[in-house]
Amino acid sequence: MQDIIQQRKILKIVCHDTAGLITKITDICYQNKFNILQNNVFVDHNTACFFMRTELVGRFYYKDSFFQDLNAALPDGSQYALHDTERRKIIILVSQEVHCLGDLLIKSAYGELDVDISAVIGNHKRLSQLVYGFGVPFIFSTHEGLTRLAQENNIANSINLYQPDYIVLAKYMRVLTPDFLRRYPNKIINIHHSLLPAFTGSRPYQQAYARGVKIIGATAHYVTNQLDAGPIIMQDAISVDHSYSVEDMMRAGHDVEKNVLSRALYKILTHRVFIHGNRTIVL
Amino acid sequence: MQDIIQQRKILKIVCHDTAGLITKITDICYQNKFNILQNNVFVDHNTACFFMRTELVGRFYYKDSFFQDLNAALPDGSQYALHDTERRKIIILVSQEVHCLGDLLIKSAYGELDVDISAVIGNHKRLSQLVYGFGVPFIFSTHEGLTRLAQENNIANSINLYQPDYIVLAKYMRVLTPDFLRRYPNKIINIHHSLLPAFTGSRPYQQAYARGVKIIGATAHYVTNQLDAGPIIMQDAISVDHSYSVEDMMRAGHDVEKNVLSRALYKILTHRVFIHGNRTIVL
Amino acid sequence: MQDIIQQRKILKIVCHDTAGLITKITDICYQNKFNILQNNVFVDHNTACFFMRTELVGRFYYKDSFFQDLNAALPDGSQYALHDTERRKIIILVSQEVHCLGDLLIKSAYGELDVDISAVIGNHKRLSQLVYGFGVPFIFSTHEGLTRLAQENNIANSINLYQPDYIVLAKYMRVLTPDFLRRYPNKIINIHHSLLPAFTGSRPYQQAYARGVKIIGATAHYVTNQLDAGPIIMQDAISVDHSYSVEDMMRAGHDVEKNVLSRALYKILTHRVFIHGNRTIVL
Amino acid sequence: MQDIIQQRKILKIVCHDTAGLITKITDICYQNKFNILQNNVFVDHNTACFFMRTELVGRFYYKDSFFQDLNAALPDGSQYALHDTERRKIIILVSQEVHCLGDLLIKSAYGELDVDISAVIGNHKRLSQLVYGFGVPFIFSTHEGLTRLAQENNIANSINLYQPDYIVLAKYMRVLTPDFLRRYPNKIINIHHSLLPAFTGSRPYQQAYARGVKIIGATAHYVTNQLDAGPIIMQDAISVDHSYSVEDMMRAGHDVEKNVLSRALYKILTHRVFIHGNRTIVL
Repeated sequence: MQDIIQQRKILKIVCHDTAGLITKITDICYQNKFNILQNNVFVDHNTACFFMRTELVGRFYYKDSFFQDLNAALPDGSQYALHDTERRKIIILVSQEVHCLGDLLIKSAYGELDVDISAVIGNHKRLSQLVYGFGVPFIFSTHEGLTRLAQENNIANSINLYQPDYIVLAKYMRVLTPDFLRRYPNKIINIHHSLLPAFTGSRPYQQAYARGVKIIGATAHYVTNQLDAGPIIMQDAISVDHSYSVEDMMRAGHDVEKNVLSRALYKILTHRVFIHGNRTIVL
Repeated sequence: MQDIIQQRKILKIVCHDTAGLITKITDICYQNKFNILQNNVFVDHNTACFFMRTELVGRFYYKDSFFQDLNAALPDGSQYALHDTERRKIIILVSQEVHCLGDLLIKSAYGELDVDISAVIGNHKRLSQLVYGFGVPFIFSTHEGLTRLAQENNIANSINLYQPDYIVLAKYMRVLTPDFLRRYPNKIINIHHSLLPAFTGSRPYQQAYARGVKIIGATAHYVTNQLDAGPIIMQDAISVDHSYSVEDMMRAGHDVEKNVLSRALYKILTHRVFIHGNRTIVL
Repeated sequence: MQDIIQQRKILKIVCHDTAGLITKITDICYQNKFNILQNNVFVDHNTACFFMRTELVGRFYYKDSFFQDLNAALPDGSQYALHDTERRKIIILVSQEVHCLGDLLIKSAYGELDVDISAVIGNHKRLSQLVYGFGVPFIFSTHEGLTRLAQENNIANSINLYQPDYIVLAKYMRVLTPDFLRRYPNKIINIHHSLLPAFTGSRPYQQAYARGVKIIGATAHYVTNQLDAGPIIMQDAISVDHSYSVEDMMRAGHDVEKNVLSRALYKILTHRVFIHGNRTIVL
Repeated sequence: MQDIIQQRKILKIVCHDTAGLITKITDICYQNKFNILQNNVFVDHNTACFFMRTELVGRFYYKDSFFQDLNAALPDGSQYALHDTERRKIIILVSQEVHCLGDLLIKSAYGELDVDISAVIGNHKRLSQLVYGFGVPFIFSTHEGLTRLAQENNIANSINLYQPDYIVLAKYMRVLTPDFLRRYPNKIINIHHSLLPAFTGSRPYQQAYARGVKIIGATAHYVTNQLDAGPIIMQDAISVDHSYSVEDMMRAGHDVEKNVLSRALYKILTHRVFIHGNRTIVL
């Protein structure tokens, strides 16, 4: 029978490190007739924590026995998930800056990043025409004249309409409250225009200029309750010198920001990122 | 009994990629009571080639049964080796430039690179005092008045006295003949002062200046019969601009060269490098 | 009288290096009541060539006397030009790849790069919708069924309609003939997806993969009769490893390509680039 | 008469930016028969501050009239200095880490950095043999059993014996008091093993690991009363990932540290660095 199609899926496992784990897990894959295309393992010996990302190919009606086998084999407290490789959906939040949003719109539209942008939510209207041009809904959600709670409820309502896999803050220049963040644990990714932990908060390029640094950069990170302090996914840096004005830093930095954000998203969308305390493991 | 000491060893395997390899190999480790500290696998799907580097801890009188098990389990044509983690011995060949040699002498002497420098062979005397200062033999092996064959025989005799694991060309500015290279297959590492394949041969900084490039760099590679064309282990790059004279490129480039060479050596000495055709896999 | 407006202009001078040049030139600026905002000088002592870029502010009805003064003061064979700071016009040639074009469209539309894109000419239709979305003309100029001469005449006719300052090859995948190039001396800028002079010609990522390099990059350069051999304006590099497929190199490389191209354009548009033989001086 | 030798000297000027400065200064050079080899100017428009570094060749018995001319021409409050290009003298302070010291010893001994190391002062004895091997005095100046004042007096006495131009803290792991620093204003250069302002104080690699950053680096800066907050001269960065232990960060970071320190020293020794508030201008 040819009716069951071979599929590719990603197995992610986090568990306490014990002897024989790789054998057990890969053997379970093998017994369940899943072929392993790629296999990446990292053991954090400081915390005795085992991380595994495995690309499997097979017929996934075997899934139940597969999960039973994993349950039996893995230590207590293990976490695992089997992800399909379908296009993920994201919602992008923006303010007025175009560079990160523009890069994601083009990459999504032309197959450079395997993601659907369900909608863009902006607290300014500047970028609406750009978004419409790509056939993507733009939702204007002003913060003016609204309590923070009211505006965040508006945003959350828009988000929930689309049930996105991730929410991307592409230079969204407002701090989100813990109440908002709590709704989307480990699902909100921000790009910050500095090499965190340097220059948290507002106007990092101005801060960098004032401090006279010779290296600037950008940081993609998960958003947590503590401002600009969530787990870092990706960073990149460039050299600057005394001749760079704040505006020069911005122009150079914008390219770094968008690259870092889209690379971080690529890693997340291909199920390569594990959050481990305040660190990330990217397999 | 406590007389058998736990040891750490590195297992490297290269073989044809077939289903279930990771399970089989890790299970063999497990059955032989070797604990896996770290495990890195890469499959080159273009060539169906499987590479594995595994750090094992255990009591290695089990070695024979371990090898038998591997022989039985691995496909025909597989190659594997079990390396201990003792300090490796290298011989360094130099001409007149100090930067790569100096860096290796200091790193070896102060534990920054886990390697013994058995001797330094130079076709000039400029660096002899430096070498003596580190308690390392310096062997002067001039090329003047000698046929290429005669000089290379002298060098080979010196090398063979020490039976080094690797031979490092730390800015040794003479081309070695195929006859010489044949004696030390996959054991000779060179640092070339360009981003190969650009600017092979002599005077790469002058070539780079003449071409007006804005990026320069260095390449550590295995030496093969074809000049500057062997498998690349490590490269790094830096930005330059029009204001750089050839001398400025040299000054900046020397730091890149020595970093690239010592990082490549670190990877080799920790048994992370596989040669695969004209490419390297660094696990 | 307030009717004469202060303007900012850029003076570029190339001449034989002689004693007292800076004094003479800056004094001429001063005598003609131009204030110097920024002044960059580079002397290539190898060729005794003097390069100067000066940002002037003043009332430019003094221009004639200014030019007379410069003529009198500068050595024979000097070249100078006074550029206004109005937005430059470019024509972009593309084939099927979106990343460089998309970046320039967004940057031009949103003020991140001070340039007008007069039109985009493509030998494929894939990118036409994107271009229209930015209100920019897209001219389809197929090469199919046409002689090279005929197609290039079509392109030249389209270009000449707009009289652009520069022609940007944003991954235009056809080689232009010397006859075509002769029409636009020092006006055609190409982005090549390798660190030239490595991997000229077609499929540089495939070449890079086959060679097993650990650093890839991109090069923006002026186009000359010799393929991929014109003066280099800007380059940038990133690290790759054995795990990068050709497709992975492309994905990572595309971000480098677009950054290098737009940074090179920024330098050209702000009149910072001097061509000096096969090198560039970027002040 | 041939008894007056042509010399090369460096003129550094900092003053309030006013119209015609370049003309005036270069004309004074010219009138005093100094030929300008290289001339770099930077104007900080935020503070209306003018910086100039000029390489002059000439016969310097004209010096008095030259200074009179400069005094007459420059605005009130101007600072200028004429530096000869003789080798500068430095004192290096170390603790136990070899990498920065070793690099400077080799570069000084083999002409890769134009500097004399008058002496090395260490609060540990680990590096003494290395220093002696280069024919450089090693002064052991323990902190044990001494008040901070007493130890710093010992160090100051040793320093003063040699009258060095600069004092280099090459991983000297003790904080110096304001009283000590006051004796050597703008003369003490430190290398800090992080990208300041991130991870000030002790154990920056451990801090970086705990924060989960993906970029680490090093900072060379002038030492001021505020810990790790002085003007930054040079920084460089490298990528790390989750697989880097603190020790891996150290190994990779040590190469960055020594490169950054020696490049910063090169800029200082060639009189290219201006301190401007808490920023540096490097011409």
